[in-house]
Amino acid sequence: FLRTRRNLGRLRDLPAETLDGARVTVMANVELAGELDTVHQCGAEGIGLLRTEFMFMNRPTLPSEDEQYAFLRAIVEGMRGRPVTIRTLDVGGDKLSEALELGESPNPALGLRAIRLSLSRPALLEAQLAAILRAGLHGPVRLLLPMIGSIEELRQVHVIRDRVVKRLRAASVPLPDPLPPLGVMIEIPGAALSADTLARHCDFFAIGTNDLIQYTLAIDRSDPAVAPLYNPLHPAVLRLIQFTVGAAARAGIPISVCGEMAGDPRLAGVLLGLGVTSLSMSANNIPRVKQNIRRLSLADAEARTAALMALDDAQAIAALADHLLVNRERTAEK
Amino acid sequence: FLRTRRNLGRLRDLPAETLDGARVTVMANVELAGELDTVHQCGAEGIGLLRTEFMFMNRPTLPSEDEQYAFLRAIVEGMRGRPVTIRTLDVGGDKLSEALELGESPNPALGLRAIRLSLSRPALLEAQLAAILRAGLHGPVRLLLPMIGSIEELRQVHVIRDRVVKRLRAASVPLPDPLPPLGVMIEIPGAALSADTLARHCDFFAIGTNDLIQYTLAIDRSDPAVAPLYNPLHPAVLRLIQFTVGAAARAGIPISVCGEMAGDPRLAGVLLGLGVTSLSMSANNIPRVKQNIRRLSLADAEARTAALMALDDAQAIAALADHLLVNRERTAEK
Ligand SMILES: [Mg+2]
Ligand SMILES: [Mg+2]
Repeated sequence: FLRTRRNLGRLRDLPAETLDGARVTVMANVELAGELDTVHQCGAEGIGLLRTEFMFMNRPTLPSEDEQYAFLRAIVEGMRGRPVTIRTLDVGGDKLSEALELGESPNPALGLRAIRLSLSRPALLEAQLAAILRAGLHGPVRLLLPMIGSIEELRQVHVIRDRVVKRLRAASVPLPDPLPPLGVMIEIPGAALSADTLARHCDFFAIGTNDLIQYTLAIDRSDPAVAPLYNPLHPAVLRLIQFTVGAAARAGIPISVCGEMAGDPRLAGVLLGLGVTSLSMSANNIPRVKQNIRRLSLADAEARTAALMALDDAQAIAALADHLLVNRERTAEK
Repeated sequence: FLRTRRNLGRLRDLPAETLDGARVTVMANVELAGELDTVHQCGAEGIGLLRTEFMFMNRPTLPSEDEQYAFLRAIVEGMRGRPVTIRTLDVGGDKLSEALELGESPNPALGLRAIRLSLSRPALLEAQLAAILRAGLHGPVRLLLPMIGSIEELRQVHVIRDRVVKRLRAASVPLPDPLPPLGVMIEIPGAALSADTLARHCDFFAIGTNDLIQYTLAIDRSDPAVAPLYNPLHPAVLRLIQFTVGAAARAGIPISVCGEMAGDPRLAGVLLGLGVTSLSMSANNIPRVKQNIRRLSLADAEARTAALMALDDAQAIAALADHLLVNRERTAEK
């Protein structure tokens, strides 16, 4: 056990590179400012997903633009030049915030959450966009929108972003030049299926596999009655990821995967085989995933994934994925 | 107004046929046995969707197999040789039944509902399958499964169906020969995206647009906070319908559409243009939809739909659909 921990520690400064030399970017999902030490210790190459909900939780009032800016600036500076992808507020659904006074909805996961909530409260979104743009003065920042479902929503955000920039410039508030790239999370099936269009209107994609799987399969995995049906290897899920990766490639924009699939060493090879070259995960998972990537060859992962995609049965897919993983680990132990 | 009603009445015995001679089958969705008079008056060519929930509602105990058989037999006989597509229980979600003692779930629409609930209570499903199969002695019956999400679920139903048939035969209960065809509702994005596989393992498809749109866009349209975002013309929805229709055609199985889209005269042309030739709707909508089909040419609908699919903006799509409809109605008035 100790030897394993020491081995994983040594991994920190090694690149996430396959046996045949394909370089994968491995980043961290961050929920709280206090996690930065862990992020560095685990060898994250940046923050692929900074959740901003912590700024809104357990308080009776909303944080001001300046307060948010101070929070974000500290994190961007703490990352010492490494990229930080900041997601706008993703509350609603299961995530509640007292200060927002959210109402009840019959199916919170299908209700007023994430960017929908932000667009319904423009003042809230404007303060957040301003804080994120300003944080870009202190390091490479990217602005990420959760739960975009249509090109119309993306257009609305562009209009609000432009208004915020104009207001800040008029008030001589310093802003980075160029402005931070604006990307969308692909986590609604309708967005994945419109990925070609969305890719032409934004700067990068981040696939959120947790929600994408939930909606694609109509399974709430927090509900024990159906949780066993939640399946990252369902052929429909693999097809949506593959299509989204292809759309990003055709439009020439970067794409990363930041759901739990990205942090599962067993699934990293599948994602690589689907063309993903950037993964963001809970920092603690980075060493194991990196270790697994360093034992894979990309050519092998691609062949393996092509075989998976040719199967049409999720159980068969899972069995083959397990089989290949077990063989790989046996080979590695020898 | 009176003249319009009389005109619609005359439509009853005319076929739903386009100007260029393409024949569309127009059927009724039925919720209660008492609707059969209306079904006949409106000129339905059969029941494209018989909901069976009414047998389970407002009662403290579950109906027995014989009780269900008697209910279904009356409806099948009442349809006098026209086809009746009987869907197994579709409770859960918003639809509650006292006798089933369903628990609470955080997102009922993503929980234990429809075929998932049936598969979790095999005795319930077996009684229903037995009653539906036996009803097939009295007219052309088709057996429809709601909310199939994977090939595994379909396989489980096949196993249970075969077990039921064996039991009935062993007890010398008469059954139709051949047995009623077994079809699946395509109403989960994951099912639509696996339509090619599902089509090889069942006898027909029925697309349920209400749920398909809900999950594809992650919008609960019963929730006023997001209902305006529910959009049947979202490009992703059109793509999923088109893909499913194509998969059915490749496998040589029939397909119909039975969500509210099917009963919207404005959208009938779009569905025809996507290759749909069978629609099932609330009986009251049949005359208007039939009237609209009789004013369309299929060639025109196909060209129009190809134009819609080339657009990537739902607002532009809706505007073009409206524009074409207005032009069409003006032409028809002249
Ligand atoms: Mg999400
Ligand atoms: Mg449904």
